[in-house]
Order: sequence, then C-alpha cells, then structure tokens
Amino acid sequence: MNLLLLDPAELEKDGTVRLDGYRAEHIFCILHAQKGDRLRAGLLNGNTGTAEVLESTRHSAILKTEGFPVPPVPESPLIPVIALPRPQSFKKTLHFLASCGIRTAFFTGAARVEKSYWKSASMQPEAVRGELINGLEQGGCTVLPDIRFRASLRELFDDPGFQSICGCADKLVAHPGNAVPCPGEMKRTTLCAIGPEGGFLQREVDFLERNGFTRVSLGPCILRVEFALAALYGRLSRFVS
Amino acid sequence: MNLLLLDPAELEKDGTVRLDGYRAEHIFCILHAQKGDRLRAGLLNGNTGTAEVLESTRHSAILKTEGFPVPPVPESPLIPVIALPRPQSFKKTLHFLASCGIRTAFFTGAARVEKSYWKSASMQPEAVRGELINGLEQGGCTVLPDIRFRASLRELFDDPGFQSICGCADKLVAHPGNAVPCPGEMKRTTLCAIGPEGGFLQREVDFLERNGFTRVSLGPCILRVEFALAALYGRLSRFVS
Repeated sequence: MNLLLLDPAELEKDGTVRLDGYRAEHIFCILHAQKGDRLRAGLLNGNTGTAEVLESTRHSAILKTEGFPVPPVPESPLIPVIALPRPQSFKKTLHFLASCGIRTAFFTGAARVEKSYWKSASMQPEAVRGELINGLEQGGCTVLPDIRFRASLRELFDDPGFQSICGCADKLVAHPGNAVPCPGEMKRTTLCAIGPEGGFLQREVDFLERNGFTRVSLGPCILRVEFALAALYGRLSRFVS
Repeated sequence: MNLLLLDPAELEKDGTVRLDGYRAEHIFCILHAQKGDRLRAGLLNGNTGTAEVLESTRHSAILKTEGFPVPPVPESPLIPVIALPRPQSFKKTLHFLASCGIRTAFFTGAARVEKSYWKSASMQPEAVRGELINGLEQGGCTVLPDIRFRASLRELFDDPGFQSICGCADKLVAHPGNAVPCPGEMKRTTLCAIGPEGGFLQREVDFLERNGFTRVSLGPCILRVEFALAALYGRLSRFVS
C-alpha cells in the first residue's frame, strides 16, 4: 500500500478520518506508523496529498489530512481488450491495470474463454472493485478504472462506446505467427487485444484484423495474461523524467 | 501448461514416458487429451518437439515422444538484479522470468529487504525449482534459469561472476526521481536492477550509479516487482517476427 486511498465521504469536516479494517492494520503492522508520521494519502477519483497520523492501533487509526494539492497520475493511453482469463489471472490483471494508471479496460468473451469464468466470484462487482482499489493503493493512483464486460467480440464491436474509441486509436493484437515485432512508444490512445489461454482462433484474429487491429509479436514465449499486459505497458508507454 | 516438460531421465529407450502427478492431471483434466492427440513437449535444458498420447487418466499418462528437433527459445538478453521481494512476489517473479526466456537472475539483499524473507519456504531450492519449472511450462521454454542469491549489494559486486557480466553489459536501475525515461530495445546484455518495496535507499542508488548503472524511469506508478520486471522485459527486448 503505497498510497492511503480515502473516499471523500470518509472525511470529517475538519479533515480527520477514522479508519478500521485492512488500512488500519497496514498502517500499524506494516508501516509501523507512529503518532506524528505523515503518510501519502489520496482521494478516490481525486488528488493526492498527505495525512498525519494522530492515533494508530492494529484495529483503528485516526489521521488528519493536510490537503490534496497533487493531481492524479496521468491516464495511460493504453486501453486493454482482454479475453476473460481464469479467475486468478483476472484478479492479477485488474490489480496491475489499476496500479499503472490504465483507466479503461474491456474484458470480452472469445471461443477459448471457458464459460465458467463468467460465473466466478471474482467477477462480482464488489470483488472487482476490491482488486482495483488494491491496485490503486499499490501504484499510488486514485482514479478507479472503468471495467467493461462484453460477452463476445461481436458484442464488443457492436458497442458504440467501443466503436468511438476504435475510431481514434491505434489498434494492436498481441498474437504470435505472421506478426510484426510489437512497436515501441505509442503517440496516441492504443487499444491492445490479448487473447485467452490457447490464443484467439484464426477467425477471431482475422476479425480483429478486418477491424483495423495489427497483429504484433511479444516474442516466442507464451506469457500469462497479466504479464503480457505488463509487457505491453512497458513497451508502449511514453515515460517522462 | 503450454509445454509438457520432460526430464531426459524420464524417457524409456523407445521414447515413451509415463507420467503421474500434476502433469497427468493437466493432460487429462485441462487439455482433455485423447489417445492419439499430439502435445508439445520439451526436454529440460534441451530441445522441443511433440509427444503422442497413448493413455490418459486423471492419475497417469503414457506418451510416445516423437523427437525433439526444435532448439530452445533464445536466451533473453535481460539479467534482472532484484532486491529480494516478499515471498508471494518472489514466486511470481520466478514464474515470470522462467516463462519469458530469462536465463540468469540475481536476488540481492538491500536495506529495505525484510530479513524474514530470506527464511521463507519459497526460498528452499525445491520450491524455487518448482516455480521455475511452472514458468517454463507456461512460456514454452526448456532451459532452467540460473538463480543466484547475494546477501547484499556489496556481496553482489564482490562476486567475480557478477563483475564479469557487468563488464560487458548495459546497466539500468529502475528508480524514480532524477531518472531518464527507460530506453527502448537494447542491443546487448542488460542488467536491470529493481529495488525493494519502498525502493532502494539513496546511498544504494548512488552505489549502483558509481558502478555504472543508469537510473531510469518506468513512469510515476509504483509497480509490484513482478510487474516491473515484465514491463522492463516488454520495453527492453528485441522481438522478431
């Protein structure tokens, strides 16, 4: 937890905040915070700043926030389009994308996506939100990503919201075989499709290509979805000093 | 498991192999392999090829290997130098590095590495080997990475083996603040240092810089170690078609 993430509704009028649960425990047990220590804090979907520890025990903490002058981490230009992976990978993928400033992601059905994945407990809105919050706290980010689910590639492309992103984005699909090496830093919003375990079917790749996606290679190894996304993030992002 | 990894000692003279344990279960329960199906197989530290399924039950499988004509995935030019992370991250880091063709990695002590991490069960040689094998099976790789542990940065740099790599490698340390943006594809072996949770201390970064490491930025977000490594892999690798 590299940022104490606060819901604006948690703040008293004078800027103090009372915490229990995992945040209090983390402040006490992991950060070993003492009265007077200052922690990095951020408002959900808002700015970041600092908070002074007034009291800290394993089960509760009281902090006084000191204003939130720093704007959120800039939005990543990457918009992943991911064939829904198995629950463990799905959770790690959510965590990672929230931690790196990705603000929008699509999870889609595909021929090799197991139907049972759609019914997993990790798909419940509260579970999704929990993973995202943990990711934000890891990355030092504050803005909750917008996660959208579409049952199939067809349904995805029928979505006017997705189509309007498509219209002004570069579009890549990470898929081995007849692929060009993945390009480096991208200059604008980039949709990045990642297939399921076992990969997209040929007809699915053809469909993506007909819709303007370029097939790119991340090398000969088959990476887990969450790592493929992190590799794409590293490769395509424009980092500044 | 995208590759059935076999120890050469497991093969009978006629090329058949009898499996039990998680490989038999995976072949039966996940791949739903039938008699006559062909699976991708590889020899530990050797080539890859195919194997035909002769029998498959949940608890045992018999396969006939059909030769191993394909050389292993090329070695990644990336050599990570990682401050030992907490056990869960350590395991995922091992998995990822084996899955992407990294062949050598150093784990080192640093001021902010908790001493307890060195005693965790995940540090046992058999546990390390298990994670690496799973990573190889995920990535389709066969060559077991060489994982080396050094108790401190000082001990690391006193190691003649590390020094000889240093002498002919580019050297980067992913560390925010006064850093240049991380470069793109590297042309030769690249040592990549990744700090502990909370980062390297200033004096540790100074020490690395005095020893030829360039401080580079992967953006404003604080990534988990395993994702920082995956991002560096994506950014620094030279992928070919």
